[in-house]
Amino acid sequence: MKRPLTRMSSSSVRLLGLGHSIYTRIARLALEEKGVSYELEEADPFGPDGVPAEHLKRHPFGRIPVLVHADFLLYETSAICRYIDEVFPGPQLQPASGAHRARMTQVISLLDSYAYRPMVWDVFVQHRRLIVKGTKPDEAAFDSALRQAETALRAIVEIKESSRYLVGSQLTLADLHAFPMLRYFALVPEGRALIARYPTLAEWLADMAQRQSVAATSSSYEHSPQKAD
Amino acid sequence: MKRPLTRMSSSSVRLLGLGHSIYTRIARLALEEKGVSYELEEADPFGPDGVPAEHLKRHPFGRIPVLVHADFLLYETSAICRYIDEVFPGPQLQPASGAHRARMTQVISLLDSYAYRPMVWDVFVQHRRLIVKGTKPDEAAFDSALRQAETALRAIVEIKESSRYLVGSQLTLADLHAFPMLRYFALVPEGRALIARYPTLAEWLADMAQRQSVAATSSSYEHSPQKAD
Repeated sequence: MKRPLTRMSSSSVRLLGLGHSIYTRIARLALEEKGVSYELEEADPFGPDGVPAEHLKRHPFGRIPVLVHADFLLYETSAICRYIDEVFPGPQLQPASGAHRARMTQVISLLDSYAYRPMVWDVFVQHRRLIVKGTKPDEAAFDSALRQAETALRAIVEIKESSRYLVGSQLTLADLHAFPMLRYFALVPEGRALIARYPTLAEWLADMAQRQSVAATSSSYEHSPQKAD
Repeated sequence: MKRPLTRMSSSSVRLLGLGHSIYTRIARLALEEKGVSYELEEADPFGPDGVPAEHLKRHPFGRIPVLVHADFLLYETSAICRYIDEVFPGPQLQPASGAHRARMTQVISLLDSYAYRPMVWDVFVQHRRLIVKGTKPDEAAFDSALRQAETALRAIVEIKESSRYLVGSQLTLADLHAFPMLRYFALVPEGRALIARYPTLAEWLADMAQRQSVAATSSSYEHSPQKAD
């Protein structure tokens, strides 16, 4: 359970998670954008034997990621990202104004509540099962997930308006929270087509894809969506 | 859809929601603790005709509450509460230190992710259906929800330790987020018994119940749990 995936330094920051997990990547993007050295340790709660007992001690709900900073252990990705932003030097990833801060929290919360499940589990994962195992998704459920995803995309576009980033002209935690989900969603032809209907979002996705933090955290799914890994 | 429930002033702050809704109450507790005058307007997305079209324009996912402050419209309770704390004068409801801020966000996030569904829907609502309509809950599902609730309670107790409030010695948004859920859960005998196993949490609940903000936002369920309303 403790095979290091990436040894970036022998620093006191460790992130327990999985390289291709959406939420692990969100936390990694925050670490990368702040320039924090960290070690990614594999913790797989999705294995055939369920959540390892060792991991349940660190995260009572058996999810990932978990951040360990010296003796401070923290789970819940939204808490991890804010913590990383607030305790480490580097660019500020939370806006200054109350209204922008509220919009950032709103985007993060709506992604968790309404976008993650349909975009990632009901569309991306179903599509991968089709590609890898030939398992056909339930068409009605797939279409329903696409409609839910579209509602979430529209809500995000309404907040983004013509800004460069999702909340104003500076990169914030909202961008880092959204990118991994929308990136996986865009690997599915139907997801890609839906995003293309919102040019401001398609441009944002292309712009984000150029970031060093994104390259440093890319998953095998992005490079070989046709193949199992 | 716009019957005012409470006219506290003709201020520019309106909260659209339902008096007995957990999330509406969380936002109201923040407004009350900050001393912000506001008007609560009824918006009921749970009616027999589903979410009214007018409400879907304000909240694309049809949930409550929605905050309207002058021309700034905001949904997602965690965003609303942070906004209220940051733009209005009054006591600070977010801690100063990075570690405490992280714990506050962690508690709010774990309540949303792991406590709300089992405590409120699977235990409290099922219990009310039994009391009001005589509908017996599925025993296995009810027991499973109690076990999930216990994991959440233990996680909160582990963070609280012996502090007066859930995160340190000052009231924070974590307390306001937790109280309405735990209050409803404690109206059910099995919920009350579970909380009683954690004296620090039972004391916190009794302490919170003394607050003026809690009295100002109490729901009919708390006073007549035996009767339909």
